[in-house]
Amino acid sequence: MKKIGVALLGLGVVGSSTYRILTDQADYIRKNHGVDIEIVHILEKNKQRIEELGIDKSIVSTDINNVVNNPNIQIVAEFFGGIEPARTFLLASLNAGKSIVTANKELFSKHRCELTDASNKGGGGIFFEASCVGGVPIIRTLTLGMQGDQILSIAGIFNGTTNYILSKMSNDGMGYSEALTEAQRLGFAEADPTADVEAYDTMYKLSILSSLAFHKSVPIDKIYREGICAITKEDINYGKEFGYTLKLLAIAKITNGKIEARVHPAFVENNHPLASVSGSFNAVMLEGSNVGDIMLYGRGAGGFPTGSAIVSDIVCCAKYPDAGRGLFDNSVLTNSDFNTDFQCRYYIRINVSDKSGVLANIAKVFGEYDISISSMHQLEPSSDSASIIFFTHMTFELGINKAIKKIKALDVVNSVYAVIRLI
Amino acid sequence: MKKIGVALLGLGVVGSSTYRILTDQADYIRKNHGVDIEIVHILEKNKQRIEELGIDKSIVSTDINNVVNNPNIQIVAEFFGGIEPARTFLLASLNAGKSIVTANKELFSKHRCELTDASNKGGGGIFFEASCVGGVPIIRTLTLGMQGDQILSIAGIFNGTTNYILSKMSNDGMGYSEALTEAQRLGFAEADPTADVEAYDTMYKLSILSSLAFHKSVPIDKIYREGICAITKEDINYGKEFGYTLKLLAIAKITNGKIEARVHPAFVENNHPLASVSGSFNAVMLEGSNVGDIMLYGRGAGGFPTGSAIVSDIVCCAKYPDAGRGLFDNSVLTNSDFNTDFQCRYYIRINVSDKSGVLANIAKVFGEYDISISSMHQLEPSSDSASIIFFTHMTFELGINKAIKKIKALDVVNSVYAVIRLI
Repeated sequence: MKKIGVALLGLGVVGSSTYRILTDQADYIRKNHGVDIEIVHILEKNKQRIEELGIDKSIVSTDINNVVNNPNIQIVAEFFGGIEPARTFLLASLNAGKSIVTANKELFSKHRCELTDASNKGGGGIFFEASCVGGVPIIRTLTLGMQGDQILSIAGIFNGTTNYILSKMSNDGMGYSEALTEAQRLGFAEADPTADVEAYDTMYKLSILSSLAFHKSVPIDKIYREGICAITKEDINYGKEFGYTLKLLAIAKITNGKIEARVHPAFVENNHPLASVSGSFNAVMLEGSNVGDIMLYGRGAGGFPTGSAIVSDIVCCAKYPDAGRGLFDNSVLTNSDFNTDFQCRYYIRINVSDKSGVLANIAKVFGEYDISISSMHQLEPSSDSASIIFFTHMTFELGINKAIKKIKALDVVNSVYAVIRLI
Repeated sequence: MKKIGVALLGLGVVGSSTYRILTDQADYIRKNHGVDIEIVHILEKNKQRIEELGIDKSIVSTDINNVVNNPNIQIVAEFFGGIEPARTFLLASLNAGKSIVTANKELFSKHRCELTDASNKGGGGIFFEASCVGGVPIIRTLTLGMQGDQILSIAGIFNGTTNYILSKMSNDGMGYSEALTEAQRLGFAEADPTADVEAYDTMYKLSILSSLAFHKSVPIDKIYREGICAITKEDINYGKEFGYTLKLLAIAKITNGKIEARVHPAFVENNHPLASVSGSFNAVMLEGSNVGDIMLYGRGAGGFPTGSAIVSDIVCCAKYPDAGRGLFDNSVLTNSDFNTDFQCRYYIRINVSDKSGVLANIAKVFGEYDISISSMHQLEPSSDSASIIFFTHMTFELGINKAIKKIKALDVVNSVYAVIRLI
C-alpha cells in the first residue's frame, strides 16, 4: 500500500481537528482509499495542545527545516493562517518538491502566483479545498466534476459569520451590533470581526474560485467589496415585506470574455435557493454551459468540517498529486478585461421632507441617469418627514452612484438611508 | 499531450449531447485539462442521427468488435440504457482492458458485481457519475471529496419526473393523472412512466449511492420501494396546511453497522432544504461523520446535464483511471445486516362513520402497537362520515402496518385513505 508522509504546520482548531481525523480514520482511509497516511512531523510551540492530543513529542518542533529537509514527508498541510510565516514555509516546501495543502484563503488569494510558480518548478501539487467554503467540495467539483463545462457564473454565500449575523437580524429582529455580539459570544465571530463583516474573507474566496472557474486571474483588487456593517434591521424588515432575504453575496460572471466580480449585501428573492441558506451554513451556485445551475451547500467553517476538506485534500494528493498542478492561468489581465459598471436592480430608501414636489425632484435625477423605477412605496410619514422606498429596474452601477450623490445633495432630501442591490 | 480514444455506444439524447460537448469543447478540454479526447468509434444504427451530427461515417458501425478490438480506444461510453446489449458490450470492453463510462443506473445497480469483477481483472476503471442524479457531481463528492468522512446517511430527491409531477400537484392543484399527462406532454415523463412513478429509477440510484457511500453492498431487493401513483392532491393539500411538502425521497442510513434503505413518498417540513427542491431539479443530502450535512442540487436528467457528467467522467478517466477502480465492496450481506423495521413519524388519514366511540376504537388499536399520537385533526364531516388525520410520534414501520390492517377491519372505519411517512 502507498505510504505517504504528512507534516502539519500548526495545531489550532483546524489543525487539531485534522490531526484527530487522520488518526481516528487511519484504518478507514487505508481500507477504503488504499493509502497509508503517516503524520511524520508537526510544527507547534503550544505544549498544551500537543499534550491534549497525546502526540509523541519526538515528532514535534518549531523548525521548518525539519519538514523541508525530511525526505519522508511528501505533503505539507498548513494551518497558521495569515501571510507569514505561512508563505515562506509553503514556498520552501514547494521548492523542496513537496505538495502543499492549505485552508489559508488570504495567503492563497494574494500569493497564488508565486505559489503556483513554485509548484510548477518543484513538481508538487497545491490543494486548497478547505480554503473556500470549508467542507463543501467546491474545488473538487470545479476541477474534477465539470471538465466539459465552461463556468459562466458563480454566486454564493461564502461566510458563515456574516450569514449568522444577518439571519439573527432577520429572524430575531436584532440590530447589527447585538447580532455581532451574540455571534462573538457563541464563537461564530472573532474578537476582531473585520475580515468577516467587511467581506475581506468572502473576497479572498471569490478571487480563488473565480480564478479557478474562469481559467483567468481575478486578483482581489479587481473585486468590488462592500461589507454588512451599515445594514440595519429596518431595511432587512422592509425587504422581507417585499419578499426578499438579505444575504452577503459573492458574485462573479464572465460575459464575452469580460469578468465581473463583486461582494456585497444583496436582497435575494425568497424562492431563490440561496435565500434559505441560513445561520452558519454556506452555499455556492455555479452555472455551467452544459449542466446548467448546480448548488453545493454545507458548513463553511468549523474545525471538523474544514478538517474534513483538508483530509480529503491529503488523500486526493496522495493518490493523484497531478490533480493539484497547473490549475491556474496566472497571465496578468488589464483593466479592460474587467467589467466594473455592472448591472443590477436596486432597493433605495430615502428620507425626505414631507412637502409637495419632492418626488418630482428625485424622479428627475433618476431620469437623468436613465434609471427606471419599477415600484415606489411611501412609508408612514412622521411629523415633518417621510421615507420612500424605490425599487429600480436593471440599471448600471455607475449611474446609480452618480444619481445617489446628486439626490443626497437635494434640499428636500434629508438622508439616503440605504442602497442595496437585488439579485 | 495525453491522447485518449473514446467509443460512444449509442447516439440517443444523452449520447448525442455527449458527442456535441466532446467536439465543441475539445479545445477547452485540451487547454484547461490537458487531455486530447478523440472519438474513435461510434455504435449507432440510426442514420439520421449520424447525419444530423455531421459524423464521418467511417467511424460508425453496429459491431461491438470494432470497439473491443481497437487498441486506440481506451474508454467506452455507453448510452443504450436497459440491460442488454449494454451489459454484454460493457463486460467485453472491461475484459479487453478498457475503462467504461455509463449513465445506466438499471444495469449498474443490478450487475455492479460482475462489472466490478471484470474491472478488477481487466484493469480498466468504471465511471458512473451520470448514473446518479445526472449533472450533480455526487459520485465525485463521495469518492474524491469526503475521504476522511464515514457517510452516516443519504437522503435525496433523485427523480425529476416524479418531482415535477408532485410539484405540479402541489403548486397548481392538479390531480396525479393530470400532472402525469402534463409531464408526458412536456417530455419530462416517458410514454410508459412505470420506472419513474413506481420509483424503480430512484431505487436503482439509491442502490448505487448507498453501496458506494457505505462501502457495503446494498442490492435493490434490500430497498423498500413505494411509488407516487396513490398520492392524491387532497393529501398534498392537507400536508401543506400543516407545513409539509410532499416529495418522493430516497433514504439510506447506516447505524451500528446495520443498513436501512428505502424509497417512498414523504412529507418534508417546509424549512428542510429538500422541501424547496422543485420541478425537475434533484438534490442529495449527505451526512458525513466530520463534515456534517452537505447538499448538492442540480438537474438530474436531460441531455446536456447528463452529457456534462459523462464528459467529466471521460476526462477524469483519461487523467486518473485509478479513480474508477476498487470503489465497491461486493461482499454479500445477510438479512440481519439490514434494518427493515425502520422508524418514522406518520401521517394517517382515515374516513370513519360519524358516530360516538369511533375514536376510542381507533385509539385502542394504536395503543396495542405502542403507537403514540402527536396530534389529531378532524376534518369537515359530511352527512354520515368524517375524516380524521393523525400524526404519530416516531414509531416502527411493522407496528404501523399491523395497526393499519386492524384499523381497516374495524366496523366504524370506512377507509384508510393514506399512510404517508414524515421526515
